[in-house]
Amino acid sequence: MAREMAEQPARLRHLIDRSDAIAEQVRAVAPVPLTGITIVARGSSDHAAVYGRYLLEAATGKPVSLAAPSLHTLYGVDVDYSGQLVVAVSQSGATPEIVTTLRALQHAGGRGLAITNDPESALAKAAGETIELEMGAERAVPATKTVTGQLTAFAIAALALGRVPFTDGELDAVPHWVQAVLDDGGAPAAAAQALAGASQLIIVARGYLFAAALETALKLKETCSVFADGYSAADLRHGAIAAVTSGLAVVALCAPGPALADVASLIGELRARRARVLVVGSGERADVPLPGEVPEPLAPIVAVVRGQQLAYELALRLGCDPDRPEGLTKVTPT
Amino acid sequence: MAREMAEQPARLRHLIDRSDAIAEQVRAVAPVPLTGITIVARGSSDHAAVYGRYLLEAATGKPVSLAAPSLHTLYGVDVDYSGQLVVAVSQSGATPEIVTTLRALQHAGGRGLAITNDPESALAKAAGETIELEMGAERAVPATKTVTGQLTAFAIAALALGRVPFTDGELDAVPHWVQAVLDDGGAPAAAAQALAGASQLIIVARGYLFAAALETALKLKETCSVFADGYSAADLRHGAIAAVTSGLAVVALCAPGPALADVASLIGELRARRARVLVVGSGERADVPLPGEVPEPLAPIVAVVRGQQLAYELALRLGCDPDRPEGLTKVTPT
Repeated sequence: MAREMAEQPARLRHLIDRSDAIAEQVRAVAPVPLTGITIVARGSSDHAAVYGRYLLEAATGKPVSLAAPSLHTLYGVDVDYSGQLVVAVSQSGATPEIVTTLRALQHAGGRGLAITNDPESALAKAAGETIELEMGAERAVPATKTVTGQLTAFAIAALALGRVPFTDGELDAVPHWVQAVLDDGGAPAAAAQALAGASQLIIVARGYLFAAALETALKLKETCSVFADGYSAADLRHGAIAAVTSGLAVVALCAPGPALADVASLIGELRARRARVLVVGSGERADVPLPGEVPEPLAPIVAVVRGQQLAYELALRLGCDPDRPEGLTKVTPT
Repeated sequence: MAREMAEQPARLRHLIDRSDAIAEQVRAVAPVPLTGITIVARGSSDHAAVYGRYLLEAATGKPVSLAAPSLHTLYGVDVDYSGQLVVAVSQSGATPEIVTTLRALQHAGGRGLAITNDPESALAKAAGETIELEMGAERAVPATKTVTGQLTAFAIAALALGRVPFTDGELDAVPHWVQAVLDDGGAPAAAAQALAGASQLIIVARGYLFAAALETALKLKETCSVFADGYSAADLRHGAIAAVTSGLAVVALCAPGPALADVASLIGELRARRARVLVVGSGERADVPLPGEVPEPLAPIVAVVRGQQLAYELALRLGCDPDRPEGLTKVTPT
């Protein structure tokens, strides 16, 4: 896991260097006119999908949805997906449920785009076009480089389809920011030490960074066998905050931008409930810093790396093997 | 909370008796041709929205998405929602973020339908059409009768827009099934007793019942200040299952239908990890029974009532006041 985390800057650089060719593929497969986009994914890929859901709707102005695979794999509903771009995301490209759902939605008129690390996979073969991540084989069970690869692929796809809330230069700087984060191992190690006694955590964020909260929570569950759940700041206030009691460990993700004020205000509310809040973000008061110049719409890629570091460091402190969590396999049938 | 739970059969009967008029409203507001449906909601209403997401896609065959409100309230993205039916769901109709998002999506060409308990609310006034739940004032902070009302309203809306996976007679029997469940308080009381020592719970389901798992988890958080999270059986297998360790309390929801086999197999896996699994469902081995004749696509309405009972009974055992959970208010700004 540590080795695959360390590969991320070079692998993301390689992916971003192929942006023009990837953008052409995306434009070739997207229907014209486009009525909407549907993303099909599970697990870590589903968190990349949440990021893609925000970014693609911002770029195309069309409704973007996350598929409910069981409608197609269990209930066999009869649907019409003409005019839809269907983006199926799977590291291995081998998850049968994702392949079946992509096939069903293509059969229903959707145009299929796969995002996968394996160009020979069933998913790549089923899809009209495939974005190959080319991140190299991922051997650790918790996905790391393929997740930041998927997030970056969504940023490139959004750039291909419309106006995006970041510049070409900012996208180009992502590998550099990821390297800066990886080079700073001290802050996440100290944060992991502070979290080591927690039997339970929640990870909160809002807007674009919500996807990074979900992914950080999953990495913690996978590597540390500790229940960690990701919440949007807005959803947490709708009831779940009642379960935030004294001493609960909370990780809050934030970056300068429109969502910052809401997360900052939530941090205050959580501290008033005597939760122990660790802040991952830019600014002086962050416990685990993010580079200050990362714009909010690209911050999830960098924040996910902070989440990987937290999970890895906490696993070591808890005596867990982050590479081979008990009872998990790399490919899941559903 | 108990009084409002007890009102459900009569209130749902009143709602179902108005099905024809409601169906006319839904058909009047839905665009022709319909390109898709977007649902806007937070909290308990968002769980009704998850149910609506499955049912409306099954009925209309068009992609159904859950809105990401921050795109419209924080980021102000420029979107085109022509051809979309936009369904905004809020018990109070007063949540500013939901009203703002509905307005933005109507302004972008969507046709708006509100589902609310308050016909004088800002949401009802903003929407093209409003389904009035007429459940009577809800005073307890944890929403109960308005949630089953919203779920039932989605069943009626689906019936209005296409072919549904249940019969008119089955929909008509829902109040009767809810009454049968309310009349059987012994099983949830015993289950709550068994859960009383748990510091953490997870609620699992698949397909249509996934919405009921999310809602049951929220009711437990709200009333008992215990962290309970809802998972789809498929998502749990994608990593989170690593955090399921010996003694973890799990509530599994199931009903006869296409999703049953997957949940049954997951229950076996969870028990192999020595989790303590309580089953809410039909069949002999259920700890908390559901009426055997409820079809899977309507089971969420009845299962949500079982979740209410579990949360209420557990709150009493933990010395919590289910009507006024600490630090929650009935209307949330985001």
